[in-house]
Amino acid sequence: MQAGVLVQRGSVKHSSQMDRLAINHITTRRWSLQEAIVGYAGLGVRGIGIWPDAAKAFGIVQTRQLLRQHGMLVSGYCCGNMFTARTPRTRSEQLSRNRTLIDEAAALEAQCLVCVSGGLSEGNADLASARKWALDGLSQLVPFAREAGIAIGIEPIHPMRASDLCCITTLAEANALCDALGFGTGIVVDVYHVWWDPNLACELERARGRVVGVHLSDWLRSWEESKVGCGMIGDGVIDIRTIIQAVGCMGYTGLHEVELVSPIWGALDPIYVSQKCIERYRSHCL
Amino acid sequence: MQAGVLVQRGSVKHSSQMDRLAINHITTRRWSLQEAIVGYAGLGVRGIGIWPDAAKAFGIVQTRQLLRQHGMLVSGYCCGNMFTARTPRTRSEQLSRNRTLIDEAAALEAQCLVCVSGGLSEGNADLASARKWALDGLSQLVPFAREAGIAIGIEPIHPMRASDLCCITTLAEANALCDALGFGTGIVVDVYHVWWDPNLACELERARGRVVGVHLSDWLRSWEESKVGCGMIGDGVIDIRTIIQAVGCMGYTGLHEVELVSPIWGALDPIYVSQKCIERYRSHCL
Repeated sequence: MQAGVLVQRGSVKHSSQMDRLAINHITTRRWSLQEAIVGYAGLGVRGIGIWPDAAKAFGIVQTRQLLRQHGMLVSGYCCGNMFTARTPRTRSEQLSRNRTLIDEAAALEAQCLVCVSGGLSEGNADLASARKWALDGLSQLVPFAREAGIAIGIEPIHPMRASDLCCITTLAEANALCDALGFGTGIVVDVYHVWWDPNLACELERARGRVVGVHLSDWLRSWEESKVGCGMIGDGVIDIRTIIQAVGCMGYTGLHEVELVSPIWGALDPIYVSQKCIERYRSHCL
Repeated sequence: MQAGVLVQRGSVKHSSQMDRLAINHITTRRWSLQEAIVGYAGLGVRGIGIWPDAAKAFGIVQTRQLLRQHGMLVSGYCCGNMFTARTPRTRSEQLSRNRTLIDEAAALEAQCLVCVSGGLSEGNADLASARKWALDGLSQLVPFAREAGIAIGIEPIHPMRASDLCCITTLAEANALCDALGFGTGIVVDVYHVWWDPNLACELERARGRVVGVHLSDWLRSWEESKVGCGMIGDGVIDIRTIIQAVGCMGYTGLHEVELVSPIWGALDPIYVSQKCIERYRSHCL
């Protein structure tokens, strides 16, 4: 509900289910941002997840123009982060950086600014304090997000990255943050990060009206494989279709972004990888 | 409460805090079981975590004799598992195997039979069904555990192993299993597997009287390091002392077992590794 007003961007142009597919640029990292926008569009993909470094290197205005030229939507600008630095000074600097990202996400008309909280900063071994700083940092960012009309998409990350990447590990924590922060905050549901959660169904129910992004990849069955990186949709054990359906029942009408963080897939030919994303989205997600 | 009667074994002989230290045999895997029993005892360690394969290879009776000769207690017999096989036939075979493990654990006067549920068996991609089979399998094992006077120690394993090792990923799930199964079931708290949990404090509170084992190691700060294996106590980010204290406040008086599943430490000289365990237990846990 709270993020509702800010989250309709991705939902307006779908003429078919396939129109909801987006691909995160990192999935085909051998492509520059320009190549990815043109390449995805050429294959009929209507959405893209964009990283700030690439957008700034090409230019925000230029990126926006190229997106419009190809009729592409931005499923997410990824990501605002580092809310958990140990010193107030560093946290203040991060707030400033994240404010800029809000403006850039707004300029790109992104569905949300994906926010990953940060983990334990150097010298800190107290998750509770990191979680408090994440709440503090997000609360300071919210007014700017509201003003810019951009939803903050809080993304819980798998507990295996609690130390070095993100202290927000479950949908329950993301829901609690939304409870506390109100309008302008939402949740990004990445199936790779939440599939294991015994509370998945009830926390998705609690996230009704809050989901501002859905990320897709797969969890490979063996630990030896899965610790290398995400798997392609359909190669692993996640019941992706059911999660997509559950999120849809909770009111999500936006894009479904394939975000495949994998050194193996990232090294392959981007056209081949993009085509595989399209094929697997059709066969395993619709 | 429910496991209380079965769980006092480890608690009777402590004359000092250091007497509560145990080391799991896997921590010094270059040693045979005989070498480990003699080696730990020689260094003043009073407890050992034992694996069935090693105990059977040496002989259960011989193991028991050697333990008595050296005044060693068994912190856990590890582990009963594979409750989640996909076919009823295989699950029935596993029950038979786990019944044998109960008897062996009783013969060794172990503090508990550590039970790891199993993950998604081949051909299954439905965690909910795996969790149901875990409940079913444990419920069938409980009467034998009660009869033998051995606590079933349900060990939640880190969510990163939900697919291939253990579908029971949180203390909340272990507590729910104990709620359902009653007397004779308990919980093994492994700090490596539960440290990230935002509900850690409240679920430990809920586990009052149920803890039948505590496993110690550390989570290394960087993902690149931590995915290789557990870290030595004190080398990572877990506030181990606080967790030990919390478990103590909930009535746990048993052994604290260093279980360091690490190819790096496992390759080192067992005496060096054992001494390091003792030193770090003293400096970081008491």
